[in-house]
Amino acid sequence: MSNPVTSLLGIRYPIVQGGMQWVGTADMAAAVSNAGGLGTLSALTQATPEDLGREIERCRLLTDQPFGVNVTMLRTTSPPPYEQIFDTIINHGVRVVETAGNVPPEVFERLRRAGITVLHKCTSVRHAITAQARGVHVVSIDGFECAGHPGEDDVPGLVLIPAAVAALDIPVIASGGIADGRGMAAALALGAHGVNMGTRFVATREAPVHERIKQALVDAREIDTRLMFRTLKNTARVLSNTVSEQVLELERRPGGCEFADLRPLVAGPRGRAALASGSLDDGVIWAGQVVGLIHDIPSCQELITRMVAQCRERLTAAAASL
Amino acid sequence: MSNPVTSLLGIRYPIVQGGMQWVGTADMAAAVSNAGGLGTLSALTQATPEDLGREIERCRLLTDQPFGVNVTMLRTTSPPPYEQIFDTIINHGVRVVETAGNVPPEVFERLRRAGITVLHKCTSVRHAITAQARGVHVVSIDGFECAGHPGEDDVPGLVLIPAAVAALDIPVIASGGIADGRGMAAALALGAHGVNMGTRFVATREAPVHERIKQALVDAREIDTRLMFRTLKNTARVLSNTVSEQVLELERRPGGCEFADLRPLVAGPRGRAALASGSLDDGVIWAGQVVGLIHDIPSCQELITRMVAQCRERLTAAAASL
Repeated sequence: MSNPVTSLLGIRYPIVQGGMQWVGTADMAAAVSNAGGLGTLSALTQATPEDLGREIERCRLLTDQPFGVNVTMLRTTSPPPYEQIFDTIINHGVRVVETAGNVPPEVFERLRRAGITVLHKCTSVRHAITAQARGVHVVSIDGFECAGHPGEDDVPGLVLIPAAVAALDIPVIASGGIADGRGMAAALALGAHGVNMGTRFVATREAPVHERIKQALVDAREIDTRLMFRTLKNTARVLSNTVSEQVLELERRPGGCEFADLRPLVAGPRGRAALASGSLDDGVIWAGQVVGLIHDIPSCQELITRMVAQCRERLTAAAASL
Repeated sequence: MSNPVTSLLGIRYPIVQGGMQWVGTADMAAAVSNAGGLGTLSALTQATPEDLGREIERCRLLTDQPFGVNVTMLRTTSPPPYEQIFDTIINHGVRVVETAGNVPPEVFERLRRAGITVLHKCTSVRHAITAQARGVHVVSIDGFECAGHPGEDDVPGLVLIPAAVAALDIPVIASGGIADGRGMAAALALGAHGVNMGTRFVATREAPVHERIKQALVDAREIDTRLMFRTLKNTARVLSNTVSEQVLELERRPGGCEFADLRPLVAGPRGRAALASGSLDDGVIWAGQVVGLIHDIPSCQELITRMVAQCRERLTAAAASL
């Protein structure tokens, strides 16, 4: 395939594995990149910028194809050392960065000056327009269906993708709600130039999570995710489990609750532990509504090959019916 | 075009104008049917079954093409005379009925026995499976984006459409989130055999609503709808206006509220009055998130012709990029 996204990123198929904390390791990213997509390391999965540097080099040993690094910028009282994270990314010659969250304009500028292609993930047309004005190369527009942070507008891809494409001049990647060639075909028909997937890549052979977690994604239906943190205006979509239900119960309390009340339940190390142990109820498991469309645990190579073939088949069949 | 939906319904394009109270009159339905789609009269818009009979005959004078009648079955203390409504539909020789809401199995059976093609609208895969088992011919699957009643599962079309298609043997029509040829192309790529639109048809020249209402739909962005009645587990998506904000304020009260508290605000006659007067804040205006994709007020003929052309163009372009 050849389109603005494959050309910009130097990849065979416009399929991006989005940033995923605790999942986006060199093994994951290299498997996706070797299969013709864009694998992405998660910067915040590494304990220090030095560890990130080592992970970047490890990824280079595992693939000779382009890969990216995701940097999610959180509003938090004790932020990670973002300055040094970007130093590391630039010094290690990474060519693609996926940003998300509250990214100061000077970060985009710095990355661009370093010759890095910037994909910015956002959840609304107005944020996408701002990101374009600040010089990002591609917008990854994340619909209400997505795992993680869908924002507070609740606009799904079927509406958000064409709205973003119409409002922007730069290429758009559709994110959220896509797990196969049908979704990829729909995204391209809506005007996107590529797709971003997270949850679907967790249920692959190479994802560095316990088999029981992968099986839980296979077993889950499209109605088995929950939106936590709505009351804090920091909504997060996760797999329904005992932790999500405990959080929601606290959020429903008269008078509500604060993040501090929830932290013990949702702390990152607990989520990481759940992914590693496969004990589903040990922590928060991020998952999008596409769990309802995931029915197996293929290799990344199988997944991407089959997806591109199905995408082609769906578009051709739909066009032929006209 | 020829596919299972066009064949079953005897129409040129698989584009259905879904049932809309106060909007689905003979003028609206005939305009859609004359343009090659399936227009639909709204049974509950007529004061009595006799009025519905007269509206069916009036529609026959306006079009020689197939059209349907929508019957939405509400849980209410004073239900409309459904038995006589179905008598009227059968006696007047209507060939297609769109059902929605809580439809007793014997209704489906009666309609089928009368040789009527039944499209049932529902918002979840499990309800769709039940409807199929009860003998409906087509399921119109209504995503979270839709105007009116999206249900309580909050699954948008990008996930819900392929999930429904995979679970059913009968044809699926995609409803909610579709306003143009891009959305139609996406729906077909996801495996649907047609599309259902409501809000988009309100912003057409033939829709029997005030010009200011049509202009309000053109002006609204995709973030300008609201979900009312969430606290009553009877969610309804409407255009944001002073009435929706008053309802939401009452719903946010500690201890919540009951429908009786909201009835004066949301009563049907007020909504009808707003549509007729164009006084936006006179009542509830139903609208889906596709308002963000509506930028003009064409005739139904222009809309459908352009939509089919854009659908073809999008599918062909997307297929060619592969």
